[in-house]
Amino acid sequence: MQKRSFASDNNAGIHPQVLEAISQVNQGHALAYGNDDYTKSVLEKFQKLFRRPIKAHFVFNGTSANVLGLSAITKPHHAIFCAETAHIQVDECGAPEMFTGCKLVDIPTVNGKLTVELIRPHLKGVGDQHHVQPRVISIAQSTELGTVYTRAEIKALADFAHENDMYLHMDGARIANAVALIGKPLRTFTQDVGVDILSFGGTKNGILAGEAVLFLNPKLAKDFLFVRKQGMQLASKMRFIAVQFDALLTKNLWIENATHANRMAKLLEKEIKSKTKIKITQPVDANAVFAIVPKTLIAKLQKKTFFYVWNDHTLEVRWMCSFDTVASDIHEFVKLIQDYSK
Amino acid sequence: MQKRSFASDNNAGIHPQVLEAISQVNQGHALAYGNDDYTKSVLEKFQKLFRRPIKAHFVFNGTSANVLGLSAITKPHHAIFCAETAHIQVDECGAPEMFTGCKLVDIPTVNGKLTVELIRPHLKGVGDQHHVQPRVISIAQSTELGTVYTRAEIKALADFAHENDMYLHMDGARIANAVALIGKPLRTFTQDVGVDILSFGGTKNGILAGEAVLFLNPKLAKDFLFVRKQGMQLASKMRFIAVQFDALLTKNLWIENATHANRMAKLLEKEIKSKTKIKITQPVDANAVFAIVPKTLIAKLQKKTFFYVWNDHTLEVRWMCSFDTVASDIHEFVKLIQDYSK
Amino acid sequence: MQKRSFASDNNAGIHPQVLEAISQVNQGHALAYGNDDYTKSVLEKFQKLFRRPIKAHFVFNGTSANVLGLSAITKPHHAIFCAETAHIQVDECGAPEMFTGCKLVDIPTVNGKLTVELIRPHLKGVGDQHHVQPRVISIAQSTELGTVYTRAEIKALADFAHENDMYLHMDGARIANAVALIGKPLRTFTQDVGVDILSFGGTKNGILAGEAVLFLNPKLAKDFLFVRKQGMQLASKMRFIAVQFDALLTKNLWIENATHANRMAKLLEKEIKSKTKIKITQPVDANAVFAIVPKTLIAKLQKKTFFYVWNDHTLEVRWMCSFDTVASDIHEFVKLIQDYSK
Amino acid sequence: MQKRSFASDNNAGIHPQVLEAISQVNQGHALAYGNDDYTKSVLEKFQKLFRRPIKAHFVFNGTSANVLGLSAITKPHHAIFCAETAHIQVDECGAPEMFTGCKLVDIPTVNGKLTVELIRPHLKGVGDQHHVQPRVISIAQSTELGTVYTRAEIKALADFAHENDMYLHMDGARIANAVALIGKPLRTFTQDVGVDILSFGGTKNGILAGEAVLFLNPKLAKDFLFVRKQGMQLASKMRFIAVQFDALLTKNLWIENATHANRMAKLLEKEIKSKTKIKITQPVDANAVFAIVPKTLIAKLQKKTFFYVWNDHTLEVRWMCSFDTVASDIHEFVKLIQDYSK
Repeated sequence: MQKRSFASDNNAGIHPQVLEAISQVNQGHALAYGNDDYTKSVLEKFQKLFRRPIKAHFVFNGTSANVLGLSAITKPHHAIFCAETAHIQVDECGAPEMFTGCKLVDIPTVNGKLTVELIRPHLKGVGDQHHVQPRVISIAQSTELGTVYTRAEIKALADFAHENDMYLHMDGARIANAVALIGKPLRTFTQDVGVDILSFGGTKNGILAGEAVLFLNPKLAKDFLFVRKQGMQLASKMRFIAVQFDALLTKNLWIENATHANRMAKLLEKEIKSKTKIKITQPVDANAVFAIVPKTLIAKLQKKTFFYVWNDHTLEVRWMCSFDTVASDIHEFVKLIQDYSK
Repeated sequence: MQKRSFASDNNAGIHPQVLEAISQVNQGHALAYGNDDYTKSVLEKFQKLFRRPIKAHFVFNGTSANVLGLSAITKPHHAIFCAETAHIQVDECGAPEMFTGCKLVDIPTVNGKLTVELIRPHLKGVGDQHHVQPRVISIAQSTELGTVYTRAEIKALADFAHENDMYLHMDGARIANAVALIGKPLRTFTQDVGVDILSFGGTKNGILAGEAVLFLNPKLAKDFLFVRKQGMQLASKMRFIAVQFDALLTKNLWIENATHANRMAKLLEKEIKSKTKIKITQPVDANAVFAIVPKTLIAKLQKKTFFYVWNDHTLEVRWMCSFDTVASDIHEFVKLIQDYSK
Repeated sequence: MQKRSFASDNNAGIHPQVLEAISQVNQGHALAYGNDDYTKSVLEKFQKLFRRPIKAHFVFNGTSANVLGLSAITKPHHAIFCAETAHIQVDECGAPEMFTGCKLVDIPTVNGKLTVELIRPHLKGVGDQHHVQPRVISIAQSTELGTVYTRAEIKALADFAHENDMYLHMDGARIANAVALIGKPLRTFTQDVGVDILSFGGTKNGILAGEAVLFLNPKLAKDFLFVRKQGMQLASKMRFIAVQFDALLTKNLWIENATHANRMAKLLEKEIKSKTKIKITQPVDANAVFAIVPKTLIAKLQKKTFFYVWNDHTLEVRWMCSFDTVASDIHEFVKLIQDYSK
Repeated sequence: MQKRSFASDNNAGIHPQVLEAISQVNQGHALAYGNDDYTKSVLEKFQKLFRRPIKAHFVFNGTSANVLGLSAITKPHHAIFCAETAHIQVDECGAPEMFTGCKLVDIPTVNGKLTVELIRPHLKGVGDQHHVQPRVISIAQSTELGTVYTRAEIKALADFAHENDMYLHMDGARIANAVALIGKPLRTFTQDVGVDILSFGGTKNGILAGEAVLFLNPKLAKDFLFVRKQGMQLASKMRFIAVQFDALLTKNLWIENATHANRMAKLLEKEIKSKTKIKITQPVDANAVFAIVPKTLIAKLQKKTFFYVWNDHTLEVRWMCSFDTVASDIHEFVKLIQDYSK
């Protein structure tokens, strides 16, 4: 195992409280496939985050949380609108198209965030048999560029979606980081403003593996048990997925982890800005810092520690902080940049 | 958490050595998606089980191991032959059809085991554009009925498959139980006799979650990285899947666990036969005992401990033993039967 | 072009009145894709065959009529029950599985006809996430074995389907032959007794190409325009599909053609029975005659005229009559049998 | 039926020679599904258009010719590059995604024509399991904007495709119009320069219904019979599809029809330019004229004759000529424009 890097929050390991919780439920037998009482009790804990009824289901990972959630609300002749930078568009190897049959309509954005104005020109051919039919707007919160939608921005998208017979889907692989930034309860910028389905991320926030698909509009979950099983995402030893979320939800560990990661990203931004000439390219809302870095400097840094070059043409790189990033990681990294920049 | 039951080997928890191993690798960061050196090293350990080169990849669960393995070797116009009782036919909610597009041709058997004679009449319409084209024979080892194919039986199926331009796929969700029974190395009844792809089970043999798809015919793995990702089965924190298999493969824990479970099933069979009038219906090769039980007795027993009625019409039930079953579980259970049968 | 044979009713050509009708509408331009008034007027003619509102749409062929109709009422986790001999099971190269994602549950029958009793044992696992969910019973009228369901038989299946939250789908590639036999209006044994979707065949009854999907339960047609287009079955010069059905529906040409074909089959049956020792194996309800024929006789006959051996093991053959079969075709054929049997 | 319009070449009817040819083969019975000698003979006529071996297969329409051709050379994790205006991207209701599972990468162009320079930036993530893998470049000849690729432009794309382990697919719904413009044999700008698959259009060039999928790289046709049948595009009375192409290929009717349509488009362009102030927006290479027309004028014209507004924002309209357009149609239409523009 290497040391901590800024490559991705999914390079981090398991939060000690999560691992301890797994150990605690490793007693005797439990009914498989989520039919045990313990799993049911954890699923109900998600309800407490919302005012109105929801339905929650576990899957193994983020791609399936997104794809199966989308699958539950689409037919193959539908269109799904997303940002050009969306994980479902770029990083899921075509799983959304393959599994739903739908066309993804990817829309360029400045900062990873869709707006009604950006989507509207693509809302065409409605009712015309030759064209895929608009059905879903899918946004990420926080976005793949580390930005965070405001409550008002989400409400505008949800209202627009619903006025046009569409649903609003939220990829919340890093939903905790958005809660941490906004500082208001999750429901205020999701169910309360009209988000229909939320992929509630766990893996990038300190657990071993697992995501929850939250149907904030619960009637959309009607067939989801079958969609999940046919989607090959039904865990047999479900209690061990459930317990990880139990640990996250206990004493707000999920928000605590994300708050820390966000704070580290802010520290990294501050140190970069004050001690180097490197240009930060995106608002540091959540736990990511995007920056333009000279090619030779990238090469030198990557010999010491791995991170991703986001754009080969512009030399924009991405540095992610995670629940286990510590201040000294940042100071060492910025020191490295300083040394290599001399 | 309830006590140990005979419901299923996937009702058991995590073997202590597996959990300890997870804890051991929970240090620092590691590259995600299987790009870390540790995961690579564990994948290479599977190679030691075979003489000729293989390719190994991890997925989350048994359904996906089967479906994605099949997907790697089929086109949608192909047919997959399997036993009427096969997990892929009965228990995967149509995932094989949905994901591969293929038709499953399910064939009745006496004991869950396919033979060339059973398959041959279904090998028709070859080259005729109206009909799905034979491509795969899929068998389970051990079978869903707790029986185990002999090396010779597997060789006959593999030869028949290859003579007819088909592949032999093996669902090894309980492959360790077969090794434990046969008492010969895994390769002797898989790669050595022509099995092309093996789903190497972990979950039912004491791990938290994870299966390995072993391409014993490695050229069939050509596109599998993409099939797996598009199949939504790429774990980001892959080291934690890998480490569970590392624990299993260390000092033959996988075989030890299975040997124990098989031995417990034999004990259960012996006790049932000697102390009750219940009829055992299948050879107890692996870790399952099938039996016909009177309806009223089933009801009484299920009030105390859960198990599955396999066939509502014949009142055949299934009792599974697992790595953590202990002799007293069996004695208590048989005592219960005796008491309730008075 | 060879002479008329008994190979299949789709070996016949175009009825002269149909060809003449095509010629008649070949004037000037017409809006494509069914948006022309003429096509709309023909679709409305189907309405006259029924009491309650229906929706009718054209496609190119029988496979697509079946598959797209089924696609309109299923999700990939559904099961479709059909006879083991069903065209959708045997002769569509897995198109139903590929396009709908569903599992086909094929059920052995004596004469190609499903019954409630045959289906009931397969109605299991309802509500259980591991199993495909019953959704459709699909029957052929007339069947692939030349038999015809009675009104009562269809009603029993429709009632059973609806009681179990399923639909009844009818493959009517040879629906006209059933009307001709039953001698009552089409609606009496379809919409009136609960058939939900009917593939209304044209190709096998004297047209160049085309089938109509009739949603007898019109609300099921909601998305069908998109299903058809995405299913690659939207004809651009639609008026030429429409006109063929116009010709068929004019002065009951469709029933007249089928009545003739049925009569020819009855004549063939009578001649075979009275003049040869060949055993007829199925009731001759519609336009097919099934018979067991000695291998050497098959070989001799096929040198003169082609027909299909239905079952290589039993040497059951199929002889189909069509709208253009004439009595002398039959007399010559039976004479040939007599000569070769000496 | 309405008079001739400039709405689309698929609003035209059947060329008299094609209808006559259909009538000629309407004699006796013929083996179905393309197994008749006549169909085989027509398929062989396509070979004469090329130097090296090809494989030809008929389907019903243009969407299926494209989608099934693409399906023959892709797996679901592949990417297909096409122009933003491509028929497969815009007008096929997501059939390519649904049937192939692939992602379509649509690329903006000036005139409907892709170039290596336009595609190159999208050729990324090769070998990376997270991303769809480049597999096909699909171009239309002539394009949806009425422009025609030169031989050199096609060669550049083919070379680029092959250097990058991709295929070049050509949507030739209007291939005859390209031949008519270029004035060289079809092979010179297709097989000779590396086109792998060509959808050879018939419907828009004077036939009732039918397209041919030409595998100019014949080894790619390996499974196509099954792909076509499972794709629901196997015509039973195939001789009637074949005969239409026989008529087209006889005495170069296909080129003659297209030459006429192109000439009419040139005349329309000339008349518009010389007699009105309307701006033509695209080079008139083939049989389409694109122009910007004032909103009020569009409304007046459409009361008399239908045509499509291509772009609601720019008020660009499309006028198509067809094999049956006559000079007086154009003079009347331009006169109408002149009158309404006063």
